[in-house]
Amino acid sequence: MAQSLFDFGMIGLGVMGRNLLLNMADHGFSVIGFDKDTAKTSALEAAATAGTTVKGVPELLQMVQQLQRPRKLMMLVPAGKPVDEVIEALLPLLEQGDVVIDGGNSHYTDTLRRVKYLREKGIHFMGIGVSGGEQGARTGPSIMPGGDQEAYALVQPMLEAIAAKVKGSPCVAYLGKEGAGHYVKMVHNGIEYAIMQLISESYALLKQGAGLDNDQLHHVFKSWNEGVLQSFLVEITKDIFLQPDDKSSQRLIDVISDKAGSKGTGKWTSQDAMELPVAVPVIDTAVAMRTVSGYKDERIQAAALYKTATQAVHTPAEMWIKQVHDALYFATIISYAQGLAMLYQASKDLNMEIPLPEVVRVWRGGCIIRSSLLEVFTQAYQQAPALPNILLNESVAYLVQSVEANTRSVVSQAAQAGISAAGFMSALAYFDAYRSERMPTNLVQAQRDYFGAHTYQRTDISGTFHTEWHQH
Amino acid sequence: MAQSLFDFGMIGLGVMGRNLLLNMADHGFSVIGFDKDTAKTSALEAAATAGTTVKGVPELLQMVQQLQRPRKLMMLVPAGKPVDEVIEALLPLLEQGDVVIDGGNSHYTDTLRRVKYLREKGIHFMGIGVSGGEQGARTGPSIMPGGDQEAYALVQPMLEAIAAKVKGSPCVAYLGKEGAGHYVKMVHNGIEYAIMQLISESYALLKQGAGLDNDQLHHVFKSWNEGVLQSFLVEITKDIFLQPDDKSSQRLIDVISDKAGSKGTGKWTSQDAMELPVAVPVIDTAVAMRTVSGYKDERIQAAALYKTATQAVHTPAEMWIKQVHDALYFATIISYAQGLAMLYQASKDLNMEIPLPEVVRVWRGGCIIRSSLLEVFTQAYQQAPALPNILLNESVAYLVQSVEANTRSVVSQAAQAGISAAGFMSALAYFDAYRSERMPTNLVQAQRDYFGAHTYQRTDISGTFHTEWHQH
Repeated sequence: MAQSLFDFGMIGLGVMGRNLLLNMADHGFSVIGFDKDTAKTSALEAAATAGTTVKGVPELLQMVQQLQRPRKLMMLVPAGKPVDEVIEALLPLLEQGDVVIDGGNSHYTDTLRRVKYLREKGIHFMGIGVSGGEQGARTGPSIMPGGDQEAYALVQPMLEAIAAKVKGSPCVAYLGKEGAGHYVKMVHNGIEYAIMQLISESYALLKQGAGLDNDQLHHVFKSWNEGVLQSFLVEITKDIFLQPDDKSSQRLIDVISDKAGSKGTGKWTSQDAMELPVAVPVIDTAVAMRTVSGYKDERIQAAALYKTATQAVHTPAEMWIKQVHDALYFATIISYAQGLAMLYQASKDLNMEIPLPEVVRVWRGGCIIRSSLLEVFTQAYQQAPALPNILLNESVAYLVQSVEANTRSVVSQAAQAGISAAGFMSALAYFDAYRSERMPTNLVQAQRDYFGAHTYQRTDISGTFHTEWHQH
Repeated sequence: MAQSLFDFGMIGLGVMGRNLLLNMADHGFSVIGFDKDTAKTSALEAAATAGTTVKGVPELLQMVQQLQRPRKLMMLVPAGKPVDEVIEALLPLLEQGDVVIDGGNSHYTDTLRRVKYLREKGIHFMGIGVSGGEQGARTGPSIMPGGDQEAYALVQPMLEAIAAKVKGSPCVAYLGKEGAGHYVKMVHNGIEYAIMQLISESYALLKQGAGLDNDQLHHVFKSWNEGVLQSFLVEITKDIFLQPDDKSSQRLIDVISDKAGSKGTGKWTSQDAMELPVAVPVIDTAVAMRTVSGYKDERIQAAALYKTATQAVHTPAEMWIKQVHDALYFATIISYAQGLAMLYQASKDLNMEIPLPEVVRVWRGGCIIRSSLLEVFTQAYQQAPALPNILLNESVAYLVQSVEANTRSVVSQAAQAGISAAGFMSALAYFDAYRSERMPTNLVQAQRDYFGAHTYQRTDISGTFHTEWHQH
């Protein structure tokens, strides 16, 4: 009888749930999926690799009854209320020690609440971030689990089997307590927003600043992807410039609207960073620029009113391409640094015990922000696991300084040319503030004390002071 | 008997509550204040101008019983739970039609909740933002009321009497429904954060970039305050550079710590802007830079690691001062534009009906962000009350363009000199994006569709599209 029980169950057989389950089956686990929609249960079974054990059922109870105990099951349903509904439906069917995983993009505070709620009932609840899109789910995603260590041990074999592998090592690890998995995934997405913004600015700087056409842009990004900028996002960008349009004679990129959408995880990252607080201004900027992209009507009016044309830059094209390359490298490092500093702070302040060396190791493969830079960071954290900011690592500092001058040149010329380089500028300004032993914010403190008696601290004497400021 | 009843009551006789009440008494209203602390009730009475009717009582009931009906009373207690506690204490004592005002810095969602709660009981609840600090409260603050029109009519005479006056017109007006008063005050504070950040960057650019000492800085800000930059914040900045230190032989500004504090309203502005969403990147940047100012230990380490010294700029000092002046003017306009765009959007999306022409009129006097620019904006909104962004007004555009070239120069040179100009850069990058008919965010949409099948829109055909992207 025991042989007929399944190793793992999935609730929700959309493309992500189905692909994760098929991935697991390919690695020798017997899997069962539930979806009310029998078209989806059939699709699951039809897509199974020959010789694997894959079953789809249209009743939740059917699935739960056929799982080995302690049961290990994941839900991939839309974040929010649907997750709570699945939990309520599951509760009467589960037993002490079972493991329930939310594999969607839930906000970590919801996960935290659910962990506590189910813990009272003896059920392990884990929030797990999964990155890599549909394709990654099928062939090897990056997996960011948070929750009880005990529960992780139960699902570790499955997760390690299906995860992307880098140098033979699976892109999954226990990433901390309670909401940590979803927190790490949220910050991953915030970094993703930042890097996408930086690549789009590079595109504008090369196209408007140096007149590069799509073929030339393809070649630039292709060569960048063969060097230190090697990354999934640079790689797909190279492809994008060549994609033909099946509805016109243009390249597809040229007919895509510039109104950028979002699903909110970048916004969450910025909002939660401010809550800690920790500074992630490149992510904030990326979120803001997606919003500005939506102001299409206003931008058309403003373009007519502010006639100053965008100018080409004066640097020769070959040199300009090299400078933009270096600026992208610089600002990408800053983006990771801000996101990782956020995880460092959150780990402490929210008591999540997030192991940063494991986070960067997991991000090396399968996920949207995978890049060769993560190898550098992995080494940095091996030297100093409790680094508050990756910029304080000497190897990283060496890389940053090697591209600093060209970054200054790009920002300087973008300002003169009238090309918006919001992310590059934000990255450079953050860097210049971060490397300042003394910032000019003593003036802010003086102002706050002047008009609001908010008090200030001194550089020479400890304590809190207030001054009756004189008018002159 | 009726003669003995008071016109207005105040709950909480801290310096703000006391000063507002004394201000009201000076304008002929009879006022009564409640505080459990009899030292404060005595202080209130002792500070009253001769011939005015001012009474302090240590029991809430005493105060409520002595107020004319419908009762008009304000609380000035810390935001959060204390406000709810006062409401619960008041409820059994009040009658239908009474007006309760929260004059503190409550978050607008709390105000909204309280408005609804008290409306069910027949009590008017108003959230009113008050800006101007202690001094302003006593002599004329800027007042930002939101709530029922009917309730506003009842307190309008008192509020108009105590408000700052500009050209004879009181700096108070009905600013919208329910939480609108606190929302407007929150955005006011967000703009305040932005302008303070910009002034602190100007300080760094002049001091580090051109070697100006405190006396020279005083003279620069003094002359700026006599021109188009005339504003409360520039005015107090001029004073700050001359303030002596009573504990050392230095100027006070030089011994004040650069760790800047905050009370959270700037953070709220950024978080709530992202929620709408609306882009306020200069405010976001100001919030982030206050956070970076707190990384003192890390900054000391980073300063040692990143030895690139901050350089002086190459522009002659006189010209540099003029350029920084223009950049401050430019970025200040952008800061107001972002804040006002946020109010425009919030007014619609949150159904608050905020009259923008009245907001800028009210901000002209009494508040921290009062400036001569608000006269320009007042005129702009008189021409077009429903302007989604003040940058679309032709007079504003003329001013912006008059200082645009120097702003580009400042950003460009700050980048080269290594002086963090986060706010200036953010303002310029926003401007350059806002005036772009086509942003490079079509690439972001292409990437999102490539890795996540998030779909995109086209420039030529309406609808939502997805492409199977090819690898090359």
